[in-house]
Amino acid sequence: MSTVQFKNPVHIRSWAVCAGRKEGKGPLGDRFDTVCPDGRFGCDTWEQAEMKMVSSAWHTALQKAGLRPDELSCALGGDLLNQCVSTSFGFRGSGIPFLGLYGACSTMAEGLLVGATLVDGGLHHDVLCTASSHFCTAERQYRYPLCYGGQRTPTAQWTATAAGAVVLSGTHSSGVRITRAHIGRIFDPGIKDAGNMGAAMAQSAYETLSRYFSDTGDGPCDYDLIVTGDLAAVGRRLVIELFDGDGIDMRPVLDDCGLMLFHGGQDVHAGASGCGCSAAVLGAYLLPALEKKLFRRVLFCGTGALLSPITSTQGESIPGICHLVCLEAED
Amino acid sequence: MSTVQFKNPVHIRSWAVCAGRKEGKGPLGDRFDTVCPDGRFGCDTWEQAEMKMVSSAWHTALQKAGLRPDELSCALGGDLLNQCVSTSFGFRGSGIPFLGLYGACSTMAEGLLVGATLVDGGLHHDVLCTASSHFCTAERQYRYPLCYGGQRTPTAQWTATAAGAVVLSGTHSSGVRITRAHIGRIFDPGIKDAGNMGAAMAQSAYETLSRYFSDTGDGPCDYDLIVTGDLAAVGRRLVIELFDGDGIDMRPVLDDCGLMLFHGGQDVHAGASGCGCSAAVLGAYLLPALEKKLFRRVLFCGTGALLSPITSTQGESIPGICHLVCLEAED
Repeated sequence: MSTVQFKNPVHIRSWAVCAGRKEGKGPLGDRFDTVCPDGRFGCDTWEQAEMKMVSSAWHTALQKAGLRPDELSCALGGDLLNQCVSTSFGFRGSGIPFLGLYGACSTMAEGLLVGATLVDGGLHHDVLCTASSHFCTAERQYRYPLCYGGQRTPTAQWTATAAGAVVLSGTHSSGVRITRAHIGRIFDPGIKDAGNMGAAMAQSAYETLSRYFSDTGDGPCDYDLIVTGDLAAVGRRLVIELFDGDGIDMRPVLDDCGLMLFHGGQDVHAGASGCGCSAAVLGAYLLPALEKKLFRRVLFCGTGALLSPITSTQGESIPGICHLVCLEAED
Repeated sequence: MSTVQFKNPVHIRSWAVCAGRKEGKGPLGDRFDTVCPDGRFGCDTWEQAEMKMVSSAWHTALQKAGLRPDELSCALGGDLLNQCVSTSFGFRGSGIPFLGLYGACSTMAEGLLVGATLVDGGLHHDVLCTASSHFCTAERQYRYPLCYGGQRTPTAQWTATAAGAVVLSGTHSSGVRITRAHIGRIFDPGIKDAGNMGAAMAQSAYETLSRYFSDTGDGPCDYDLIVTGDLAAVGRRLVIELFDGDGIDMRPVLDDCGLMLFHGGQDVHAGASGCGCSAAVLGAYLLPALEKKLFRRVLFCGTGALLSPITSTQGESIPGICHLVCLEAED
């Protein structure tokens, strides 16, 4: 059974989101801790800007928790850049014990999952989890330099410019806890179109949710919201169709962070994507709603496409993964 | 205190190493489970070859343990390629719950550390840890295409072509266990020469070992061997000098995997490097020696340089990290 039920309390102590200008104009814009006036955050390069976003997010989350960096057991995090440099440079000089993760856009969920396991095991107390992405760094690295003005297909998604940070704690709570988690398997549906990541990841979300329901005996009606990371319009529709095949109607509870970050008129094609997408929606919408008890139980399902430009160039298909954590409001 | 002492037994159940031809001609050549006759392992590309090495290593480790993939709680792993594709493609289709790590060349130690925490916590039983690197994929990605015939500086290291896999277990033992671990901090000594990674990582190894000694009250004489991952000749000398400054003589017990993988005459300049370097030495030398009780206690310190080609191009220095696990022979 791949679903784990934590034996000890794993509380969410604090969180923060630092987002870009376009995200700031979206429906969650007034809920971010920091919105940067431009894509460079006062830096010379986009990569430096992304590093600064990571740093801003975790500093704010610690400030809200009243924690000093040296009081943390460790930090876990990752991003989309080659060698995850936004995260490691965002923690350079922090003095915080650091474990780098790579889960593509599933990183926020992967961090919460591993972090919760560390806290549950009792050897680690306050653990910080981060994830970030930046539209301009991702475009340059995965697609074309922005100045080429490359055209996007209708199935393409817009990488969110955002960094999120969450502090997990064995002792201090904001009123939200992580009760269960499910480690995803890699699933490759054979899709080779790097402009259609939603389709590449949808089957992974279906596999993880199906196994989770099977392991726990729960169904969609046991949750106020089931939210995937960045399947966007194409991927969400596929997950609904896959569950329809099992006679399970996911429509009433299934949403996707890629459809929640931007307004319909913001020209993002199928929706948002990137590690920062689910991290931003988690911190700006899901956790506040759980804290206020507007939701009681939410499944947060981070989805990731495990490709690289070189695998696509070599004709490989795109494997996907989906890690799940169950978030519950505490009484 | 960043050093954790595991409360429950974390046994090493089995391990395996798949290595390249040059590594096969080195001093540990006859101890690898598989040595491939060429750099491509029968594949069309080097990247596919590295994916096949990862797959070969974990299949062999599972076979030695008598485990089926579906009996594992999860796999943890990473590599040096952009987006860690060797590892994710090496597990594609395995059906094993998978957590991707990025620790640069410290990945094998990071995997053992996180895996041991999962096993210790009791929610996960048999956990597989892997790490890999390939000389040709790394050269193309980090430096120059091989066909350019670029010259190497004397401080440069040779990325090992090797993949290692280790199965951790809460119940079954080969006679070796992980008793403690220390999560490293990111330390940046300000070195900008990407041809001198040993110098960039040496301070991290010193910081981690110093904190570990301080946390535990142990000193070098409490260990049969203290082995760093890939500091090679330059980095090892720097660690010795840094400890000399504290009045601690590390010479009798300090070795480095980067100095153990190749013969002096194999033209690797300062020594070996890469995730596969420490993974190969662990599986081909350290674990067998602990199993035979030739060593009682060994500190395995994975060292990593957290740079990317883009950070170097943008003039950034090279942050390092070092994760430590304490391996002990069981009575």
